Amino acid sequence: PRPELAETGTTIFTVMSRLAQECGAINLSQGFPDFNAEDVLFEHVAHWMRSGHNQYAPMAGCLALRAAIAAKVEALYGTRYDVEHEITVTAGATQALFTAVTACVRPGDEVIVFEPVYDSYAPAIELAGGTVVRLQLAAPDYRPDWAAVAAAITPRTRMIMINTPHNPTATVWTADDLDRLAALVRDTAIVVVADEVYEHIVFDGATHASCARHPELAARSFVVSSFGKTYHITGWKVGYILAPRALMAEFRKVHQFNVFTVNTPVQLALADYMSEPARHLGLAAFYQAKRDFFRDALAGTRFELLPSRGTYFQLARFGAISTLPDTAFCEYLTRDIGVAAIPLSAFFADGRDERVVRFCFAKNEATLAAAGERLRRV
Amino acid sequence: PRPELAETGTTIFTVMSRLAQECGAINLSQGFPDFNAEDVLFEHVAHWMRSGHNQYAPMAGCLALRAAIAAKVEALYGTRYDVEHEITVTAGATQALFTAVTACVRPGDEVIVFEPVYDSYAPAIELAGGTVVRLQLAAPDYRPDWAAVAAAITPRTRMIMINTPHNPTATVWTADDLDRLAALVRDTAIVVVADEVYEHIVFDGATHASCARHPELAARSFVVSSFGKTYHITGWKVGYILAPRALMAEFRKVHQFNVFTVNTPVQLALADYMSEPARHLGLAAFYQAKRDFFRDALAGTRFELLPSRGTYFQLARFGAISTLPDTAFCEYLTRDIGVAAIPLSAFFADGRDERVVRFCFAKNEATLAAAGERLRRV
Ligand SMILES: CSCCC(=O)C(=O)O
Ligand SMILES: CSCCC(=O)C(=O)O
Repeated sequence: PRPELAETGTTIFTVMSRLAQECGAINLSQGFPDFNAEDVLFEHVAHWMRSGHNQYAPMAGCLALRAAIAAKVEALYGTRYDVEHEITVTAGATQALFTAVTACVRPGDEVIVFEPVYDSYAPAIELAGGTVVRLQLAAPDYRPDWAAVAAAITPRTRMIMINTPHNPTATVWTADDLDRLAALVRDTAIVVVADEVYEHIVFDGATHASCARHPELAARSFVVSSFGKTYHITGWKVGYILAPRALMAEFRKVHQFNVFTVNTPVQLALADYMSEPARHLGLAAFYQAKRDFFRDALAGTRFELLPSRGTYFQLARFGAISTLPDTAFCEYLTRDIGVAAIPLSAFFADGRDERVVRFCFAKNEATLAAAGERLRRV
Repeated sequence: PRPELAETGTTIFTVMSRLAQECGAINLSQGFPDFNAEDVLFEHVAHWMRSGHNQYAPMAGCLALRAAIAAKVEALYGTRYDVEHEITVTAGATQALFTAVTACVRPGDEVIVFEPVYDSYAPAIELAGGTVVRLQLAAPDYRPDWAAVAAAITPRTRMIMINTPHNPTATVWTADDLDRLAALVRDTAIVVVADEVYEHIVFDGATHASCARHPELAARSFVVSSFGKTYHITGWKVGYILAPRALMAEFRKVHQFNVFTVNTPVQLALADYMSEPARHLGLAAFYQAKRDFFRDALAGTRFELLPSRGTYFQLARFGAISTLPDTAFCEYLTRDIGVAAIPLSAFFADGRDERVVRFCFAKNEATLAAAGERLRRV
């Protein structure tokens, strides 16, 4: 056993989804849609399977898919990633993040993360022998404190992991944030890992501040995204990572011995699907409508809704409702009210309880309406 | 960059498959079939996709698939693995092996492997901070030397990685081998990792010596298998790992932060496909016929064919044909003769050249006949 993971239990997402199922609760905990992807995508998969494309893909991913990713990224963010050397298809964003950390972090290295933080980052860093340096994003805006970042950087800082749009806080970084980050890492060897799986889900007319849009950062960053959130197929586990050639060479050394490749017919189907007119274009409006619908549904409650500027999550303060710890409150919500949510404390290493829960609104309106009705009874 | 992988290049399988494609050669290098899986399997996938099973699977894998695996393993090997705690679905066997090593090996630990060795084992060990202890399997039988194994075990030995049927040598271990292994590890804390992805491909009436069949070993082993080799879908990247509960708990701690889950509709389709009458039953005879066909096709050549007792590989000595190093000989075969093979030296850390190449005979008879015709021209 690895002592780094001695305290590791089952992820909160598994725990809450299981509890929701046991209780027959509406599951607004783990982030995934309750509606289906389009049949045409499945038809593409069936086509490639039937026509015999079921053996190993190239290690970096199918060329057609890498080309489609390169075209999308260039169209959106203006940076041209080399299809041969700078794009790798991964078994989901989580595997991309794990592998990037494993490829770059060595014992004694420090890695800066921002709390609340997605639960896979710290274990990956610790397994690689790195030290997790946790900076706090403070409620209600959860904005990075750039003075604190500057103070946290040491000669041992090897990597900074960022996430925008941010899970779980639903904040989005600005172009100015990226400028500040770039200024801080400018004369260092720090690698940036940018988790951008919600890149197409930013609201109220904001623009996603992708590291791929920022030439100086792009030259030293891993940019990670995924098809799960964009095409409503979180269970397919296909993502990708972008990086300049030298960084990608290190990434692939680990990738080829970790998963080696990713499902071939699924990759080819995604390439087809991407090459049809930009399917992600309507996604922000689609989810913004759901956000608004869900917020309206909670309007009559004593939940205090924090801003949701991106992702498909909504944070809610429940201090006016209950004095329970957030974990107990989520259990109560699931068992007695019939709506599962994630306690924000799950995203803090010290389990800090800000009396906030996270709801996922990637659901049909009927689901959101039913959840709203139940939550109004709290 | 990780110094452990400083010397790591692209895997030989990628290199040779790419060269084969460039040269229009018949690709008998990387191990994969050139025939398709059955349509009914694809129909199962389409069914689960269309019916909306496209979101996250449970972390350990879909229950239906774990149950089908448990049933198969118990029927074949007589050991009952608990569906909840002792079976995990993985993104292929490679990810299972990488994750098991990452979960168990700590800096300073020694891990015994048998050379020639599959190319992902040593990097996984080294990335975890372990030391690779290489024992040699000697031509032409490539049998383990149990006195050497006994001598290699030290108080630091944490793990022994075995592989039967063995890639690349096509040897199979016997029940007696497992008894000897069990005796050596009996009073230690050594964990066994058994790579058994060719479990259904043993020839000439032999029985696969699975660690899952050996109660004493099963109690301390990770047993890894895959659907790729069994159902002709190497590109789908779905495998599984079996282990007693305590070991599996450590495995899952890493697994959940590495890939988290595996493609849901594909898992459900495999569960359906497995539950129909044992599809692996004919596999050994199917591949034995191909082995015999390929050996016959090479009968008139100066290749000296070593025994092929399992897997879908055939080793061939070429010393009577050429004085080239095996890598150069493989390049010559690919470019000038039009048949790609893998040089055995790729499986030795010191690049030892035994003047042996590996051919994959998981091909249609027409492919094998064409390759035979070309190879008779050498
Ligand atoms: C990997 S399961 C968790 C899904 C997710 O991204 C979330 O709920 O935050
Ligand atoms: C992971 S690609 C290599 C496939 C294989 O198992 C082999 O050719 O030995």
